[in-house]
Order: sequence, then C-alpha cells, then structure tokens
Amino acid sequence: MPAATYIGNNTIDVVESTQRPPGPGQVQIDVAYTGICGTDLHILHGNMDSRVSLPAVIGHEMSGRISALGQGVKGWSVGDPVTVMPLDWCGSCPACTAGHQHICHNLNFIGIDSPGSLQKQWNVPENVLVRLPESLRLDHAALVEPVAVAVHDVRRAEIKPGEKAVVIGGGPIGVLIATTARHAGAEVVVLELDADRRVMIKELGFEVLDPREQDQVEWVNNWTDNAGADVVFEVSGAAAAVLGATALAKVRGRLVVVAIHPQPRPIDLQRVFWRELTILGARVYERRDFETAVTLLADGVIPAEKLITGTVPLGRTSDAFTRLSAGDAMKILVDCQAVPA
Amino acid sequence: MPAATYIGNNTIDVVESTQRPPGPGQVQIDVAYTGICGTDLHILHGNMDSRVSLPAVIGHEMSGRISALGQGVKGWSVGDPVTVMPLDWCGSCPACTAGHQHICHNLNFIGIDSPGSLQKQWNVPENVLVRLPESLRLDHAALVEPVAVAVHDVRRAEIKPGEKAVVIGGGPIGVLIATTARHAGAEVVVLELDADRRVMIKELGFEVLDPREQDQVEWVNNWTDNAGADVVFEVSGAAAAVLGATALAKVRGRLVVVAIHPQPRPIDLQRVFWRELTILGARVYERRDFETAVTLLADGVIPAEKLITGTVPLGRTSDAFTRLSAGDAMKILVDCQAVPA
Repeated sequence: MPAATYIGNNTIDVVESTQRPPGPGQVQIDVAYTGICGTDLHILHGNMDSRVSLPAVIGHEMSGRISALGQGVKGWSVGDPVTVMPLDWCGSCPACTAGHQHICHNLNFIGIDSPGSLQKQWNVPENVLVRLPESLRLDHAALVEPVAVAVHDVRRAEIKPGEKAVVIGGGPIGVLIATTARHAGAEVVVLELDADRRVMIKELGFEVLDPREQDQVEWVNNWTDNAGADVVFEVSGAAAAVLGATALAKVRGRLVVVAIHPQPRPIDLQRVFWRELTILGARVYERRDFETAVTLLADGVIPAEKLITGTVPLGRTSDAFTRLSAGDAMKILVDCQAVPA
Repeated sequence: MPAATYIGNNTIDVVESTQRPPGPGQVQIDVAYTGICGTDLHILHGNMDSRVSLPAVIGHEMSGRISALGQGVKGWSVGDPVTVMPLDWCGSCPACTAGHQHICHNLNFIGIDSPGSLQKQWNVPENVLVRLPESLRLDHAALVEPVAVAVHDVRRAEIKPGEKAVVIGGGPIGVLIATTARHAGAEVVVLELDADRRVMIKELGFEVLDPREQDQVEWVNNWTDNAGADVVFEVSGAAAAVLGATALAKVRGRLVVVAIHPQPRPIDLQRVFWRELTILGARVYERRDFETAVTLLADGVIPAEKLITGTVPLGRTSDAFTRLSAGDAMKILVDCQAVPA
C-alpha cells in the first residue's frame, strides 16, 4: 500500500507500506484527500524532528470513507464518509481532568506524533471519527480540520455581532478565521503582504491592506472612530506583526495568538497595561469546533473552491510541498486514491 | 502653604505655594498623609518628564479631612475623613462610552498629570472623593489607593477560592496583591529577590521563594501536582520575570501584567499557545475597587503596620524618596500637616 513518508533531509518519498487490518476499536479509512498545512511544511523542513519518529507517514487534514471496521466498533458502517479529529489525549493529566482534553499535557497529535493520513488506507481509533454529510464533497471536507482551527480561534475571541476584527496574515488559516468571524457577525480587515493573496481576499469580499503601503494603526483608528479593533488575530508568525498588534486593539480588546512563534517575541506590555488588553493563546480545537466546521463547509459558508489551489496524486505528494514552500498556493490536496507518480 | 514640588533634575523641594479656596464643585482637603509610590520615584528620576509639567506638586496615595467646601458641593461636611480616587476622565472617548472610564483615552491622573497631594491643603473635584470610616486611622488610609490597585488586579484575574497564585515581585503592590488574593480564597506564593522583603513576606504567612535559589518551575509544579498555577501576577517589572512567567501557569491559566514595562518584553508565545494561556493587562482601579480597599483596610485584612516602614514630615519629603530609591523601605508616608524640615 503506498504511503507518502517523511524520511528526513527535506524529503517526502512514496513508499510501499504494509497494509494492516484495523485493530479492536479501530476503523480503516480509504483516505480520499489529505490537505497539506504549514505544520507539515515545518516537519519537512526538519523543524520538528525532535517530535517525529522517522520514517513518518504524516498528514492530518483529511476526508475519506470507512473501508473496514475493527472488533467492537459500533455505530459506523463501511462506506460512511468521515473525517478525523486527530487528537488522542491521555484523559488523566491536569488539562484533561480540567476538561481541556484538546490541550492534554501528553497529547498525541495524530499525523505528527503518530502515523497520519498521507496513505491510501489509514487505521484510526473510532473515537476520533467525525461524521460527514453525504452532501459535502470529499475534497471540500479535507478542509474541516483547518476550518475547525478557525472556529476555535473565533470562539476563543468571543466575537460578538457588530464587532470589528483585524486578521494579521492572509494565508489559509487567516482567510478561514476572517470567514468564520464574518459569519459570526464581525466586520473584518485582513493585513497581508502577498499581492496575489490580497487579490483573492478582496474577491472574497474582505477589506484587505498591505501594511507596507498603509499605516495600519491610522487605518484601524479611522475604521473604528478612534476606538481600536475589538479583536486582533495574529496569524502571520512574524515578530513585527506581534509587536505592532497591540496598537490595533481597543481598550479591553482581545489579541488572539494563532500563529506558531518558536522564539519569544517582544510584546508592547506598556500598551497591554495601558488599554487593559487580553492576549489569548488558541490551540487546535474541541469536538464542537469540528462539528461546527463540518456545518460551515456543508452550508457553503467556507469558500472551499477558492482555497483549494490544486490537487496532486499521492505519488506526487512532494510536488505539493514544493509549491507550498514556494508560497504560490493556498491549499493543495493530495488525492490518496490516485497513486501514480 | 508648603508643597513638595518636583522641579526636575532629580529634585523635590518644599516650596511655598499660594493657597486658593476650592472652586465650584471642589472641596479643599487638609491632607493628612501621602504615601510615595514607584510612579513617584519614576517622576523624580525624570522618566515621566514628557507627562509632568514643571514645577509639579505630585502625590496621589493620600488621606485627609475636608477643610472647606466649594460652591454647590452637597453631601459632604467639613471634617469628613476622605481619600481621593485620583482619576479624572473625559466621559466621551471610546473607553468612557464603553464603560471603562478608568482607562479613558484622555485620562487626567491627578498627582501626575495635574497637581497632587504632597501639600498641606489640596483642592479636588468632589466626584473623586471616597468616604473613609472614622474607625480607619488616617495613616493606614493612605494605603487605600495601592490596595485598590491590588483589588483591581485580583478582580481582573477572576481569582476563585482554592486557586493557586504566584506573585512575582514582593514590593508593596506585590504584597498587597498576595494579601488580597489570599483574602479571596487563593493559596499564594511570592517570588522575591530581596532577603529582607522575603523575611517580612514570610512573617505575613506567605510562602516565599528566592528564584535564584530554587527552580521556580519545579517548585510550582510540585505545589500544583504538575498542573501549574491558576494565576501568575507579574509585579516585578523585570524582563526575565516576564519571560519565565508563562512557564508557571497551568493550561488556560491567567498571567496578569501589573508592573510597568517601558520596553517591549520577549514573551514565550509558544507556551501561551501550547497551554492556551490568557495574558491580562490591569491598570489602576474602578470606584468599586476603591470601596473594597477601604473595607479591607478598615477590617484589618491589610497588614498596614508592617507595610508602612516610616513617616517623614512634609519638609523632609526628599528623605522619603532617598530611602525608597535605596530600596530599604516598603512604604513611606509623608505627614503633610507636619511641615518642619
């Protein structure tokens, strides 16, 4: 069975792996599509080698149909369309016992810490399955996971109708946050450096700024009658964006840190103090976020067509990584049933 | 009338100033005591020259008795013991109209942006008065303002009974936060570098650590069964403390930024993300915090005797600054009726 495998040294190879039947409590999925995300790029570039055991089948944004049921699995049938919420928590650490299983101290993130979906068939525990409606196309359904990230971020921000939100960074997650925040009733502006992305974001009906061309503080102050934005989402990962983000928020405004910042970042704590800002970390999602994400995709709220730049067969997975690394794509899917290289 | 006046160049002089009757809507207060705080030290050291108009009568932690009523003042009598909540807001900016007057965009902080209480008599608008009970000693009442800061900080943290809180920095505000948090039902540990302060904090019944002697993360993990603290208060103003603070907090824990950080500070956003932490700015207080502070002092919850290191006459105000600058005192009061140098 073919599986796209990270073997270190900036290399993804498609190798033949042994096909195993699903174990007790597991299901086997014929993976339809797997989306490639920023974390997968980090893995390819070796930034997460301390966490990933080589060789590693990665991938965690997926859709598919159940192809076999392991012993004891109930409530699911072969052929059911599904996606996977790729979190496997311990259930006993302080985070789990406090009800925050999604940020379990010992979290196994499936597709990073254990084998992922970049393979033709994938065995997963039944409790990570999320049911898809038949009406939702499986290529669109591969976006459920990143949409769930956006849903979680917007929920952490406690966006209320009529609020004004700034999204710093208009990549896939930034656009999904903008879309989800707008759906929750917010007015949204997106700050994005890349001209092609700005064109696309504008086509989606958002205000969009190039912060090198416009004074973002002045723009936001004009937009908000000098109050500042209710919410700022930091999705860029850039140090300068973090430093500037606090100046965009109103008194008691919220700054949600979505991007990964591997290094400590200077933050204007004087401004945090002066305006009594709240900075919130937001990580992955909870099951209700996943379920909301399925609904948003099924209802056509998410512009899946615009976001999916292209699809490659499993045998050409490395092409997807190459295009994404070059920055000339939003989301590329891997068709895990179409194997030829 | 004598007034202790900042004249620039690291100098506080006691000068004769003109005594004016209270204007319409004002009261005149015979100032009993004025406490000197960290902000006053910053002013003396020239760090706030852009905000302070020279010569400046400073001081904003005070107690006294009303000595005259201006035209139209109702509900107050000569002789009433009072303190002042030194905030004068505009009422029309976005912060004020959103109900956050204490962080008004155009806030006049009385004693910094306009004349303060380091004088024998002080005229203030009646709406900043806060009534004191006769049972509360006026020297203790000079602590109402810093206690209100602590009350506000603990309220921002939403401390619940049984929670565990770390206070980084055991100066006057740190000790008041620790005391207020404990009164709200929290268990508290204070991290403090100064040995004399550690002795005093221990005498007040708190756990206290020297973070140079003990691994603070290990200590907090042991204390919290590996969960991390519910709340961390950053009261030290030190960059290293900010950088280390995030490692002390549990999943979904809160970090309250109390200290002033004039420079942007590196923050471990990876940890903020990983544990979904909340960082909260907290500035000054609201009227209900002031009223709670009066009650806490009147009820003997606040260890006023221990906190007040000494009292100097108005004529020797500069001695108070010298001792505080040297770091060998917690709180020094100026007796504003005792003038002799």
